[in-house]
Amino acid sequence: MNIPLSGPRLWDSLMEMARIGGTPKGGCNRQTLTDLDSEGRHLLQRWAEAAGCTMRVDRLGNMMLTRPGRDPARKPVAFGSHLDTQPTGGKFDGVLGVLAGLELLRAVHEAGIETAAPLMLVNWTNEEGARFSPPMMGSGAAMGLFTEAEVLAKQDPEGKEFGAELARIGWRGDADPALLRDIEAYFELHIEQGALLERAGLDIGVVTHALGQTWYEVTVEGEEAHGGSPMAGRRDAMMAAAPLIAAVEEIALAAVSAAGEPGRATVGRLTVYPDSRNICPSRIWFSIDTRHGDPAMLARMGEEIRARAATIAAARGVRIAVEEFWHAPLTPFDATLVGRVRDAAKRLGIPHMDMPTGIGHDAVYVARRVPATMIFCPCHGGISHNEAESITPEWAEAGLRVLADAVLATAGIVKG
Amino acid sequence: MNIPLSGPRLWDSLMEMARIGGTPKGGCNRQTLTDLDSEGRHLLQRWAEAAGCTMRVDRLGNMMLTRPGRDPARKPVAFGSHLDTQPTGGKFDGVLGVLAGLELLRAVHEAGIETAAPLMLVNWTNEEGARFSPPMMGSGAAMGLFTEAEVLAKQDPEGKEFGAELARIGWRGDADPALLRDIEAYFELHIEQGALLERAGLDIGVVTHALGQTWYEVTVEGEEAHGGSPMAGRRDAMMAAAPLIAAVEEIALAAVSAAGEPGRATVGRLTVYPDSRNICPSRIWFSIDTRHGDPAMLARMGEEIRARAATIAAARGVRIAVEEFWHAPLTPFDATLVGRVRDAAKRLGIPHMDMPTGIGHDAVYVARRVPATMIFCPCHGGISHNEAESITPEWAEAGLRVLADAVLATAGIVKG
Repeated sequence: MNIPLSGPRLWDSLMEMARIGGTPKGGCNRQTLTDLDSEGRHLLQRWAEAAGCTMRVDRLGNMMLTRPGRDPARKPVAFGSHLDTQPTGGKFDGVLGVLAGLELLRAVHEAGIETAAPLMLVNWTNEEGARFSPPMMGSGAAMGLFTEAEVLAKQDPEGKEFGAELARIGWRGDADPALLRDIEAYFELHIEQGALLERAGLDIGVVTHALGQTWYEVTVEGEEAHGGSPMAGRRDAMMAAAPLIAAVEEIALAAVSAAGEPGRATVGRLTVYPDSRNICPSRIWFSIDTRHGDPAMLARMGEEIRARAATIAAARGVRIAVEEFWHAPLTPFDATLVGRVRDAAKRLGIPHMDMPTGIGHDAVYVARRVPATMIFCPCHGGISHNEAESITPEWAEAGLRVLADAVLATAGIVKG
Repeated sequence: MNIPLSGPRLWDSLMEMARIGGTPKGGCNRQTLTDLDSEGRHLLQRWAEAAGCTMRVDRLGNMMLTRPGRDPARKPVAFGSHLDTQPTGGKFDGVLGVLAGLELLRAVHEAGIETAAPLMLVNWTNEEGARFSPPMMGSGAAMGLFTEAEVLAKQDPEGKEFGAELARIGWRGDADPALLRDIEAYFELHIEQGALLERAGLDIGVVTHALGQTWYEVTVEGEEAHGGSPMAGRRDAMMAAAPLIAAVEEIALAAVSAAGEPGRATVGRLTVYPDSRNICPSRIWFSIDTRHGDPAMLARMGEEIRARAATIAAARGVRIAVEEFWHAPLTPFDATLVGRVRDAAKRLGIPHMDMPTGIGHDAVYVARRVPATMIFCPCHGGISHNEAESITPEWAEAGLRVLADAVLATAGIVKG
């Protein structure tokens, strides 16, 4: 295969797309179903149509940009990601996967390559979940994990409805979202949003699975006491919460699987009642996000957190409720597709390693229904969801080349 | 001395005063400088004038209800507390001290007792600090710890000024607040707002001193990371704050003085940034309130908290700033007056113990300028600043009797 992939053209397109919603600090604010989102979609449409693709848009706004294949029996080999950003997002999260897919289509078009299976670039609606919660709505609904009706009825913080906003910006199509389940494979190139690749000096992450996640909510209930009262009789909710939070970290680090992989745990939200400097709190509420690549270890983390909570509650005369808030199962990626990504990196001589994704992506929902996998490229300092998010043109090009190689190996080149 | 003090009359007055601002849950919402505050002041004025007192009101609204003495050389022996409450306050915090003082004046009046020194009942303006911050404004300004101008210019959360509100409710007097420094002694009966007396089965606390207090603000600065990223590279501000908060408790309990007294520490406020379930926080801010009866131990608690913060910061690659926010020195009460309270309890056969106050009171500011002390009576479960605040009529009467005995022993009975 001699495909005229252009790293510089990919980079130029990334920079051009970033101007739509570009922020003074160099980031991007192109939230889903805004006028800027529409503008970004139109630009992608023009580019893809110029590369010989035809567009279909489904009832949720998911864009399918397809180049036909030679074999009428083959379903599309799909790839892509999302163009929407966080309110103070960067230029690459999601966008890299879409525009690398575009560059692949441009190169194939220019070279007159024909594939056995059709090639399909997908731009999923509302991956970020920043404006309409939850995230990954377009892919989740296309895979049948949410109903169309529930997605269309979601409201943003101003009370505007998803369906109405989608129609207003002109991107409510008529295709059935279930079409996106009728594909042969799905590949997604994405920035790592962590710093493992950069620290290891590697350009490609071969993503083997998505960690299982369980989120909890913890409520500690004690009794208010004045800050001037002796500590002996107190039932201080803060002083019960503090060692439990410390234990959450300890438990995650000790939850090492047979594969040598520890757990991950985050306490990202905490509220205090009554929130006064000289009153020992009667109630502390906090969230715990636990993740693990081994489902048994993930469950054990939850058990150990509950056990520690019970010990602390008994010792301090407080009540601690640990409630499961949300769970996403461990999602393995398709072994054949993972192998193609690994082979591509090897063949191209690009330093790489296997790794899980700890973070949700459209590909994780897609993988629940269709063979799918992901390719990671590094991002500086692991910084993402931030205007300072940055990658090098070299990393982007390495990701592009591995994506193209794996996609074409799957689709099959008939005339190259 | 055979003084016709009436416990039931005191109790009835407490219940009558509690109707002004009474809440459905049995508490009281009579915040400073509201129409209800004015109504409560008028009721006290009527009651005290009926007991032969004359009233003066100073420029900050502090009420002085005086019964003359026989010896023109003697300054007033003062006593009292405050009628203002928290928004969801109880019936006794402050009010007990004022109305026990009233009952003393009524009994003295009825019995035709004459004292060498004048007797003066004081109702201090804005002890609670709930509407206008800081607390203990009337006593603090009268003692010269705040200027009149700064107090008058304070604003409530709606932007209303203290001076304007005081005038509006008709209680801006013309007396010089410094008059309140020109007294011989000051006694304040107050509910304990802790549970030590109740647990010990004692009816009176002989308050020997007010603990020193130092309040800190702590800011932990790390780095945001996605909840799905490995924990190894994180600089998680929450996971640095948790062991530091646990250490604050440990340090306070270990700060035992030669007198066998440990410290007291409270972490009552905490904020998280960016406050998202799946983002490890980059910034945690929290308050620490430390108190101790031994100034050296109080200082040592601060040093140990700073040392622990430095250790944690170094180990975790975060920055931790521990800044002093406020300090109030240890305030000893007047030994002679403390002795009179102790003697009164002994003479009356009321079970009692010496104890400090860990909480600020008007008497603590007064004691910085004038001989002063306090008498505590128990309150159920130590619950205060709460509509559920409660005491027994027997506790109220024990407090009344000790107050009357100590006040009259100080003022000197000329004709009894």
